[in-house]
Amino acid sequence: MPRSHSANSAATLPFPTLRTPAGPVPADAPAWNPQRGSAMPAHRYRPAHDRVAVPLTERAWPAARIERAPLWVPVDLRDGNQALAEPMDTSRKRRMFDLLVAMGFKEIEVAYPSASRTDFDFVRHLAGSGAVPDEVTVVVFTPARRELIERTFEAIEGLPRTVVHLYTPTAPTWREVVLGRSRDEVHRLVRAAATQMARLAAARPGADIRFQFSPEVFNLTEPDLVLEICNGLTELWDAAPDRPVTHNLPATVEVATPIVYADQIEYMHRHLARRDGVVLSVHPHNDRGTGVACAELAVLAGAQRVEGCLFGNGERTGNVDLVTLALNLHTQGVDPMLDFSDIGTVRRTVEDCIRLPVHPRHPYAGELVHTAFSGTHQDAISKGLAHHARRAAGLGVPECEAPWEVPYLPVDPADLGCTYEAVIRVNSQSGKGGIAHLLQVHHGLDLPQDLRPDFSRTVQRATDDSGQEATPKDLWELFRSTYLAPGEDGPLTLGPWTATEPAPGRHRVRCELSEGDAEGEEGPGCYEGSGNGPLAAFADALAAAGHPVDILAYAEHGLASGPDSAAVAYVQCRIGDATYWGAGQDTSVLTASVRAVLSAVNRASGNRGGR
Amino acid sequence: MPRSHSANSAATLPFPTLRTPAGPVPADAPAWNPQRGSAMPAHRYRPAHDRVAVPLTERAWPAARIERAPLWVPVDLRDGNQALAEPMDTSRKRRMFDLLVAMGFKEIEVAYPSASRTDFDFVRHLAGSGAVPDEVTVVVFTPARRELIERTFEAIEGLPRTVVHLYTPTAPTWREVVLGRSRDEVHRLVRAAATQMARLAAARPGADIRFQFSPEVFNLTEPDLVLEICNGLTELWDAAPDRPVTHNLPATVEVATPIVYADQIEYMHRHLARRDGVVLSVHPHNDRGTGVACAELAVLAGAQRVEGCLFGNGERTGNVDLVTLALNLHTQGVDPMLDFSDIGTVRRTVEDCIRLPVHPRHPYAGELVHTAFSGTHQDAISKGLAHHARRAAGLGVPECEAPWEVPYLPVDPADLGCTYEAVIRVNSQSGKGGIAHLLQVHHGLDLPQDLRPDFSRTVQRATDDSGQEATPKDLWELFRSTYLAPGEDGPLTLGPWTATEPAPGRHRVRCELSEGDAEGEEGPGCYEGSGNGPLAAFADALAAAGHPVDILAYAEHGLASGPDSAAVAYVQCRIGDATYWGAGQDTSVLTASVRAVLSAVNRASGNRGGR
Repeated sequence: MPRSHSANSAATLPFPTLRTPAGPVPADAPAWNPQRGSAMPAHRYRPAHDRVAVPLTERAWPAARIERAPLWVPVDLRDGNQALAEPMDTSRKRRMFDLLVAMGFKEIEVAYPSASRTDFDFVRHLAGSGAVPDEVTVVVFTPARRELIERTFEAIEGLPRTVVHLYTPTAPTWREVVLGRSRDEVHRLVRAAATQMARLAAARPGADIRFQFSPEVFNLTEPDLVLEICNGLTELWDAAPDRPVTHNLPATVEVATPIVYADQIEYMHRHLARRDGVVLSVHPHNDRGTGVACAELAVLAGAQRVEGCLFGNGERTGNVDLVTLALNLHTQGVDPMLDFSDIGTVRRTVEDCIRLPVHPRHPYAGELVHTAFSGTHQDAISKGLAHHARRAAGLGVPECEAPWEVPYLPVDPADLGCTYEAVIRVNSQSGKGGIAHLLQVHHGLDLPQDLRPDFSRTVQRATDDSGQEATPKDLWELFRSTYLAPGEDGPLTLGPWTATEPAPGRHRVRCELSEGDAEGEEGPGCYEGSGNGPLAAFADALAAAGHPVDILAYAEHGLASGPDSAAVAYVQCRIGDATYWGAGQDTSVLTASVRAVLSAVNRASGNRGGR
Repeated sequence: MPRSHSANSAATLPFPTLRTPAGPVPADAPAWNPQRGSAMPAHRYRPAHDRVAVPLTERAWPAARIERAPLWVPVDLRDGNQALAEPMDTSRKRRMFDLLVAMGFKEIEVAYPSASRTDFDFVRHLAGSGAVPDEVTVVVFTPARRELIERTFEAIEGLPRTVVHLYTPTAPTWREVVLGRSRDEVHRLVRAAATQMARLAAARPGADIRFQFSPEVFNLTEPDLVLEICNGLTELWDAAPDRPVTHNLPATVEVATPIVYADQIEYMHRHLARRDGVVLSVHPHNDRGTGVACAELAVLAGAQRVEGCLFGNGERTGNVDLVTLALNLHTQGVDPMLDFSDIGTVRRTVEDCIRLPVHPRHPYAGELVHTAFSGTHQDAISKGLAHHARRAAGLGVPECEAPWEVPYLPVDPADLGCTYEAVIRVNSQSGKGGIAHLLQVHHGLDLPQDLRPDFSRTVQRATDDSGQEATPKDLWELFRSTYLAPGEDGPLTLGPWTATEPAPGRHRVRCELSEGDAEGEEGPGCYEGSGNGPLAAFADALAAAGHPVDILAYAEHGLASGPDSAAVAYVQCRIGDATYWGAGQDTSVLTASVRAVLSAVNRASGNRGGR
């Protein structure tokens, strides 16, 4: 829970261990940059450029454009379930699998079957349950060990279409520190495993079994070793356009700016053998928060297939987020090839399965990402939505089909199955536009332009005092108590009244008016007035009762369509030296407007909100 | 809470509104890509390339490198408090300000003083409280309206160093739909405001007041209009190297891949007038999840200053995350110019102030980002940490100063004030390496290599059954009940015993052994054995008691340093046709090893875990 903190206790802030910034100003520091060296031990790290540069002489990717979606392959179900403290059991795995199928994924990595009983059992469950539709291929993951490859092939027995995905550590630190093997030894290990896989597949003639290889921590491996191993496997597995091999090049740990990864992928794209028989795949992680950019730049650089997870789940900082990637294409006019028309259900299902939350600010799916609190943003969105509606009407198409260009909303929430309800929310930072928008959307009130700043001040006082958000219901209650209630509650109250039109254009009102609070109420008096309309006649009667008012503005509208719906009237009156807004609500349009005038009078006598 | 879900109820899954994928296969779809068109209405969006391309003829940014940190400017305190449902009050704002100062920020945007009482009051609080250190400049934000600019200058009265930051909507949709003004009208509006700012600053001769301008939604504004307005202000404000003007170019809404933003920034970098008197600043958002990449590429393209928020807070999907950006430099060997030596405190303070969580997978700061659950990762990390320790020893430097290259850990958690405790956590997906690591770190046990797979199977059974994570305490308890307890609890129990060495190299053990459970316990018998060591003699006595054992392996170590610490002994015995591990713990090294042998014997008779 948030702790409260005195505004003047800076000296007691809990920073016992922060290092004091120190060090000289760099010689070339310009006058505008007052930063001095920090005490962080950055010298312990070598720049990625020095570790993993590829001999690329010119780049094509910066000028390329993505015109169609790559093949999306979710790995949510694989390999230690992406480092969940509580791994998914078979029923949660199945729920995730069904979600992935329903969203439209056509290739799905489902398990590391030799690693645990749970994973093995899940593959057997898929083989036996008919859960895999005809158009979906499942992928299973295996290390390069004889008995584990055998166990993997046992797991897929009976599945009609599978990709067996072999991975091996190839990066120097992994080879030397973890495996204790030389380059040649690693290469021989991979070839032995690949040969075994080809033999096991050949022994299952009816089954459609394809192959995938991942040099582990590709982005830290020497490019010539990657090419040597990958091209060797392309030959060994006899890759062809109608039976391609997938070479997956993982940034298992993200260690460089996306430019470096894009260069690495473009280099591989240009140098992989039998290129038309190879599916070039990428598997970015997100340790530097640039996983999405790495995937996008990699696709520009030649990648055709992207592995990732929904909402970026996965070990440490996660795999690249396939939801964001696909919707980034959608908002560029490129078919994402996945169905996000009910993103709320996708999100809730994933949260239930992995027992981790999607952050409120997560692109496209977080609960706050279509929300504006600030007054200027709300005003722009409100005008933008109105403009959008006019444009759709002009084009003769439904709003959900019209071109989308609303300020501050890079995607139409309706495309994702979201309503506009949560788009605008009100707190002390909000302005009149947002408040009016919420009252209109939730309560059907179309506040006159000149009433908006008046009501906005009331709302800002309330939210400044509470420090809380005001819900649409709060706003309605505030509107009711401010503008409607004074027409009902007195001090001046209206008894029986009649309005007549004795001659065309001549109106007369007769009414009973009583005054005072519950304690000192005066008896009702009967008053009469006339004018060129019933409101003018009522004002005349009020003047006769000692309450002269000057009606400056009037507006009224029905709250819903149909003859039975109530109307709301708004009037602005000059009373004494100030102006006051009042409002009234009734199924009679006349009664509503009379109440509105009475409200303004009562607000004036209580001196509530005039100016 | 997660709902349970039957594994076979795919038909009842809650996807009533997901659209059915439809549409033809694209003509050029290769055989390996089975995706068909989805029903998402991508046709409603225009590609960013078509909307915002700049006339850049060649790019320098892809080949550039970042060699020093840009000026970091946090905007956490500005403009509707970055869309918090509960805005910060003055005490929380002050706490955030003090945190930013302690971290080393030198320029801090603190408020939009004309927008709300809270913001105005906070600037006055800063002016009056002495909270702003000498090396820190505060920035205040204002729209281009006469009375609001006046109010802004009232707010900063008495602050020694300030930047007044003017913003104006300039993008076409904003001009046309929101403001209803032409390009020329917008330009005149900006110049009038800038002239007023210059006059108000000139009227305060001792105050150091500088200027900043932001063309709102820069990335959607015509480049020639941006240059026309910015270059006009550079002249008007008379920018010079010793008194530069900041032009801040916000991607207020992220609408394109980072390449497009980098191109836009490089174009401005090349065309801004009086370039050495201008600080080129960027302000990326994160609607496409590529805010960090946008900022990095923008710095490569010529930006010198980056606005953002801690952990990427801010409206919708947030501003770019300054923590990730700075630590991305750190791990490339570039001084981040900010202090992250206690990132836990930074994180907790921010969470308390903004009342939003940092996600468990947030780069560098999330609770899971230094954590490995999978067996292969744990094994690699464990070996990598051991290698790191040897390397530091070889270099004669402390581990926290040695070059860092540990697999799967892109940053040394110690740099951020984190311990290694949370790095390795164990569940059913984990392997022997991680389990052994945790027992070593938390309980001082150095399990023999050959015992590790034996114990790992026990742990995997337990975690597979529970579906939960096993804590270090759970592991210790499992180790105790599996290997230590059988040496104490029987069925065979050891009474008084002595070990003697009657002649050099000849050892004799005399002991009392009783057998059976509580119900049918046999009376103790006295046994004697001899051998070339006390364990061999004890084994001989056991054989005499009808329990022949063959000791295959033995290891023992102290649990802590010092003569009083307990020792733990591990023995592997052949008993009958199988081998069994046992362990014993005692302050006597001999007693511990005797207990270990007894444990193996008892495990064999209970047939617990032999193979």
